[in-house]
Amino acid sequence: MTQLQPVLLSGGSGTRLWPLSREAYPKQFLPLGGRDTMVQATWRRVEPLTSLPPLVVANEDHRFLVAEQLRQIKAPQPRILLEPVARNTAPAIAAAALCALEDGADPLLLVLPSDHVISNPQAFRDAVEQAIPAAEAGALVTFGVVPSSPETGFGYIQAGGGQGAQPVLRFVEKPDAQTAARYLAEGSYFWNSGMFLFKASRYVEELQKFNPQMVAAVRTSLEKAKRDGDFIRLDKEAFTASPSDSIDYAVMEKTADAKVLPLDVGWNDVGSWSALWEVTDKDANGNACAGDVITIDTHNSYVYAESLVALVGLDDVVVVETDDAILVARKDRVQEVKKVVAQLKHDERSQAVLHRKVYRPWGAYDSIDMGARFQVKRITVNPGATLSLQMHHHRAEHWIVVSGTAEVTRGEEVILLTENQSTYIPLGVTHRLKNPGRLPLELIEVQSGSYLGEDDIVRFQDQYGRS
Amino acid sequence: MTQLQPVLLSGGSGTRLWPLSREAYPKQFLPLGGRDTMVQATWRRVEPLTSLPPLVVANEDHRFLVAEQLRQIKAPQPRILLEPVARNTAPAIAAAALCALEDGADPLLLVLPSDHVISNPQAFRDAVEQAIPAAEAGALVTFGVVPSSPETGFGYIQAGGGQGAQPVLRFVEKPDAQTAARYLAEGSYFWNSGMFLFKASRYVEELQKFNPQMVAAVRTSLEKAKRDGDFIRLDKEAFTASPSDSIDYAVMEKTADAKVLPLDVGWNDVGSWSALWEVTDKDANGNACAGDVITIDTHNSYVYAESLVALVGLDDVVVVETDDAILVARKDRVQEVKKVVAQLKHDERSQAVLHRKVYRPWGAYDSIDMGARFQVKRITVNPGATLSLQMHHHRAEHWIVVSGTAEVTRGEEVILLTENQSTYIPLGVTHRLKNPGRLPLELIEVQSGSYLGEDDIVRFQDQYGRS
Repeated sequence: MTQLQPVLLSGGSGTRLWPLSREAYPKQFLPLGGRDTMVQATWRRVEPLTSLPPLVVANEDHRFLVAEQLRQIKAPQPRILLEPVARNTAPAIAAAALCALEDGADPLLLVLPSDHVISNPQAFRDAVEQAIPAAEAGALVTFGVVPSSPETGFGYIQAGGGQGAQPVLRFVEKPDAQTAARYLAEGSYFWNSGMFLFKASRYVEELQKFNPQMVAAVRTSLEKAKRDGDFIRLDKEAFTASPSDSIDYAVMEKTADAKVLPLDVGWNDVGSWSALWEVTDKDANGNACAGDVITIDTHNSYVYAESLVALVGLDDVVVVETDDAILVARKDRVQEVKKVVAQLKHDERSQAVLHRKVYRPWGAYDSIDMGARFQVKRITVNPGATLSLQMHHHRAEHWIVVSGTAEVTRGEEVILLTENQSTYIPLGVTHRLKNPGRLPLELIEVQSGSYLGEDDIVRFQDQYGRS
Repeated sequence: MTQLQPVLLSGGSGTRLWPLSREAYPKQFLPLGGRDTMVQATWRRVEPLTSLPPLVVANEDHRFLVAEQLRQIKAPQPRILLEPVARNTAPAIAAAALCALEDGADPLLLVLPSDHVISNPQAFRDAVEQAIPAAEAGALVTFGVVPSSPETGFGYIQAGGGQGAQPVLRFVEKPDAQTAARYLAEGSYFWNSGMFLFKASRYVEELQKFNPQMVAAVRTSLEKAKRDGDFIRLDKEAFTASPSDSIDYAVMEKTADAKVLPLDVGWNDVGSWSALWEVTDKDANGNACAGDVITIDTHNSYVYAESLVALVGLDDVVVVETDDAILVARKDRVQEVKKVVAQLKHDERSQAVLHRKVYRPWGAYDSIDMGARFQVKRITVNPGATLSLQMHHHRAEHWIVVSGTAEVTRGEEVILLTENQSTYIPLGVTHRLKNPGRLPLELIEVQSGSYLGEDDIVRFQDQYGRS
């Protein structure tokens, strides 16, 4: 039997679920459906189907997040293809297919966006098994979600009927409300979910037929890729030369071998705060509350609180509180959150891109206070991780360890610090911070100086390729 | 001519404008009407009318706030009567009257709640001048606000007509909507504002007539008061023995000498978020926004932001964001904020009483981060101020000065620290922090230990009477 190679697409711009998601930390990295993040849940959902490790296609900027989140759930060592620029799904999947073909096998690619919720994973796995025969026979199978409402925000697929994977009659664009209602009534229309199953070779063949230039560009970018541990960095020049297109336009709508497998597994793309409200457990008043929330006569609302949020006399609102931005919106207007993000981007505000807590390959930092000539950060260093050997021209730093153990290089000396011990790094002194222990290291850094920007850093050595 | 003695009543429970106001920091201490706090604005409004310093009646817990805020605007050295328990306005004003009579004079008391907004202070002063002849002739004058709407939240005063201070025909309780509309139409009804003008002796005389027990109790509490700088601490046992009553019930509704002076000066008691919205300048969409606010298709709303608040598609809401609590309410339901505060009090949550930033006689501290065995505070010490000589049993402290100069007593040694210098206070070591300079001292304190509660403190000496 042909091997099944799950391909996790880690895309997403972080706009629609702002302020919880940000450009640097989009929704697939958030635990929106439960304890796991969405990328973790995506892997766990398919892990029982295969003995192969995940193949991931991710944005260069998210590489450490993907790797760390898969490591946390003890996923087998993944291959992570890094896109130097965004070129939509067709080239991304082409890179995955060519990569999967490299070792001589021709696995079935199970292509999965990593930011969807599926409430019934066993039913999903059953559906995948049902699609396998058609895919092994050379079909390009898409999974079509059985519609539960006359949704106007999705494209639809009309199926030809029959058992298992059905022939695709046509793909249709997002319909108006009346058309959507008709599709729902007719029963042969399904939502286009963006999940696929096909042989790697068949996808490449069909793409070669319709867009040879794309295959050539992606092939070159993979041949010239830099391999760096788990990461496969696609060559920028070659990948940039590829046309940008979705798999639907580039292949699925053109191929004669498209099939669709109906899927009734509690799927939700969590494409907005109102969609998240729908998939979240609600109290007797219809409120979905996460965190410390007090509601007085409030109904059918979604509330996410990091500190304390109190609502009085409101219906159908969304309130999302993070430590540096708060959204309050009418639940049926949450699509317009993108206007807020657009304005923040226009104004070059950090809240469009970053959370207050910023993730780094070695851990994270959170800017907990700031004044005219000082800044206070809480720094978390993962076990075994090491920051770059560095120096600052404009600031001195006090470090106080509050948890775990730090190995501090300061000029020529190397010292060990543990809880309730501190050190001082004068301006201009070369230094390095390492967590030599088995537990996370947490320290408070107090910076003093006339300029405190992140760009006042001279890196001499870096184990993450940043020097 | 008789002297005019402004009496500032600094009451307020901090409930109705939660979370901006808290029990320990109620609304008179907030700059809700502009740059000045409301207590500061109250003094500035009457300062041109008199050469006497303010006489303040305040809650014991707010004594340093009152003193500091008056000092900031260079008000002449006030006398501050401290109520050991709340007994409503009649005993508070009796204490002020007896205190004003102490030095042999018999000034006109101008009694002013310190948490109201008056947009036309000159018109207010003109009104006070108009009321003086009646008060000098022995009348107890109340100021009646010319109603601008059929308000059901205020008591009303019916006036007998005429120029200047008019005879009071009757006081009436908060009316229903229909009655309020009739009062508004008739033109002889005024809102009971809680502001008064009368001779100190006349108030005491009338109160003696109707409630001699109250006068006796307050007189004893003043005789036994502890005088401590600006503070006059009324004797607790005696003051507690006083009946609790409002000046309206205890005196104004009973005296034959009540008069009312109509007041049309842009008065607002800012008794709710919707009242604050009314008195605040609004943009073209009717939104009153303070701080960093983005509104998308939002109208007639009040928004206060300490970080960043974005609103999408909302009308008539109130959003108030502070660093440890956020309120989102329908504007016509803001009275129910008190239910939120009641729940927080019931649950013994600090957000009912304190802000994250806590004011102390020597300055303030703000708890900027906290973990299992550590806490980080930003500490501000006013110029010349000194914290108590103290010791902790369960925590060690790292101090890093980020602005100004610190004089640190640590065991036997005394050291000076300036920006970018630090010290360490081991657990159990007696220490003291002083700001010997002319600028505020700011330092970051990192506490480490197994117990970090505010009550782990042994005070050996304290210049604020807390040891």
